Amino acid sequence: MLVNDKHLTTIWYEKKTDKVKIIDQRLIPFELKIIELNTVDEICFAIKEMQVRGAPLIGVTAAYGMYIASKENAKIDFLEKASKRINATRPTAVNLSWALSEVMTKIADLKEGQTSAKILEIANQIRQDDINNCKKIGEYGCELIKKIYEIKNKPVNILTHCNAGWLATVDWGTALAPVFFAHKKDIPIHVWVDETRPRNQGFSLTSWELLNENIPNSLIVDNVGGHLMQHNKIDICITGTDRTASNGDVCNKIGTYLKALAAYDNNIPFYVSAPISSIDFSIENGVRDIPIEERDSEEVSHVTGLDENNKLKKIKIVPDGSSCTNFAFDVTPAKYITNLITEKGIVGANYQSISSLR
Amino acid sequence: MLVNDKHLTTIWYEKKTDKVKIIDQRLIPFELKIIELNTVDEICFAIKEMQVRGAPLIGVTAAYGMYIASKENAKIDFLEKASKRINATRPTAVNLSWALSEVMTKIADLKEGQTSAKILEIANQIRQDDINNCKKIGEYGCELIKKIYEIKNKPVNILTHCNAGWLATVDWGTALAPVFFAHKKDIPIHVWVDETRPRNQGFSLTSWELLNENIPNSLIVDNVGGHLMQHNKIDICITGTDRTASNGDVCNKIGTYLKALAAYDNNIPFYVSAPISSIDFSIENGVRDIPIEERDSEEVSHVTGLDENNKLKKIKIVPDGSSCTNFAFDVTPAKYITNLITEKGIVGANYQSISSLR
Repeated sequence: MLVNDKHLTTIWYEKKTDKVKIIDQRLIPFELKIIELNTVDEICFAIKEMQVRGAPLIGVTAAYGMYIASKENAKIDFLEKASKRINATRPTAVNLSWALSEVMTKIADLKEGQTSAKILEIANQIRQDDINNCKKIGEYGCELIKKIYEIKNKPVNILTHCNAGWLATVDWGTALAPVFFAHKKDIPIHVWVDETRPRNQGFSLTSWELLNENIPNSLIVDNVGGHLMQHNKIDICITGTDRTASNGDVCNKIGTYLKALAAYDNNIPFYVSAPISSIDFSIENGVRDIPIEERDSEEVSHVTGLDENNKLKKIKIVPDGSSCTNFAFDVTPAKYITNLITEKGIVGANYQSISSLR
Repeated sequence: MLVNDKHLTTIWYEKKTDKVKIIDQRLIPFELKIIELNTVDEICFAIKEMQVRGAPLIGVTAAYGMYIASKENAKIDFLEKASKRINATRPTAVNLSWALSEVMTKIADLKEGQTSAKILEIANQIRQDDINNCKKIGEYGCELIKKIYEIKNKPVNILTHCNAGWLATVDWGTALAPVFFAHKKDIPIHVWVDETRPRNQGFSLTSWELLNENIPNSLIVDNVGGHLMQHNKIDICITGTDRTASNGDVCNKIGTYLKALAAYDNNIPFYVSAPISSIDFSIENGVRDIPIEERDSEEVSHVTGLDENNKLKKIKIVPDGSSCTNFAFDVTPAKYITNLITEKGIVGANYQSISSLR
């Protein structure tokens, strides 16, 4: 999508230099910095420290990580180890293990000299598939927004949580793909952007994406959504997912569950944009069985932003001696989800519908 | 309650200097600063800019504000005007108008020379009543915690939102009074403290109160409560209220509604500590009729804390050109509230029970 009116994606392979490049998302919205990833260490750092984040993008990055590993050493043993190291960086998003197993399965029978080229081909394919799938999700989701507009005949108010925009994928995004499509089709929309503490991906990433695409939006703290829904200020909620269980439970950024409860209480449709790569068919019950990442407490106790001299500053917002707990995701039970928007169409958040996507 | 092992209250009248003193709460937890309020302007500033906050404390401050006004000019006309100015500072908490009308009603028939002394007497009484009522709420609420402990025989996990501790009242607090009582009675407890964006009263005030009283607690962002409840990590929720409608709907800090929904979904008791002064008997339907204050968007776009040199810094956390919306309260429908804890005992959040408190 657009950044300062120029098209950009989150990750790409540059043929002439044989390099993998990414946007360092930790600096957005305050700085746009493009960096190279050259070693498995750098890949692991990028995922763990969230230079790249968002379930689909983590998957694509992991695949390129395997290519970088194979340039160092193309032996299967070494690649197995690299895959395990990359897989251990973050526990919740299923795309990470999905992409790694995609690579390892497809190179299993190759000779050492063939693996590197093949992995690059797979990684490029996963990247391109991600773009195509997000576009399809955008088209299907846009129809939902269009239908609301046809009835309402006023701008459609959309709530989203965290960032499941193009920065969470390669391009287009998942939750925001329908938003970008609706805007391109001139359907009047307005997006409510949840701050998404502790890492503020709503304020720093989603708002930045929407501003760059000139889409009307308002930033709100995470506490506000319920009040807005009670007072008819939200027509539809769309979020992403980090892992979708086979029963339709959705694991997504912490706080998603609370918004789904409020949507349910106020009869507002709550959709989840779920690329099929986010579905973990092995998990029968998401609430019970999806592991929830607990991250560094400093993400809670400290906040980063610009000071009065436009310098990036990290400040501490809790008293000395405080103890902070930082769960990064929660699971929304399927019963609160209206439907899933997938690249194969809109399907119910239930075992039967999800099985049909297999 | 205790601050550095010394007992302190939020507001008091100092006889020897004839001065009203408060803690400037905007600087807590980073600095403890006591200031004098000497003019009606200073009273209005203190309430509007939240040097004092919390519905009960706003009421007490308003009453002392009328005393300060009467020292300047004891004519009823002047006092009427002062009352209107103070009443206009914040729209949501009912204690503000309640305390002002308490003063104006009781001085209506007095001669000019008698009003000032009488107002001081009324203000001191409102202050003392607030302390007594909070203590009663603490005693009743403590019984609830004790019962959970007797069944569970492990530390009781309590979730609270915003600050309804002693800093929101004169002493003891409303939501936290049961917590302080339980701790004094050696019932093992642990408090989950919601950050409470945008003004972070949980992280800055509630955590500071609990640390000063040595009560075990963990700070969490506002998104986390639902996940904790889903996984049996919360036994009871207790919040305060800024205005309680006669049907039992509770208007409290934005985000309270979301936590009540999660408690309901997980069969966790959700109590509201509601001094009778918080009840607005004239409001039949809280969701529909309680005015919700919209505050400055800078509270959303900027955050204050300590930089690496322990200097207070305000930083901006949104991109240039962002538009922020800042609703300060929401209303939790009565059906999601287990019961109200009042100074007259624990009562249902419904018309009949609330009418009996009149």
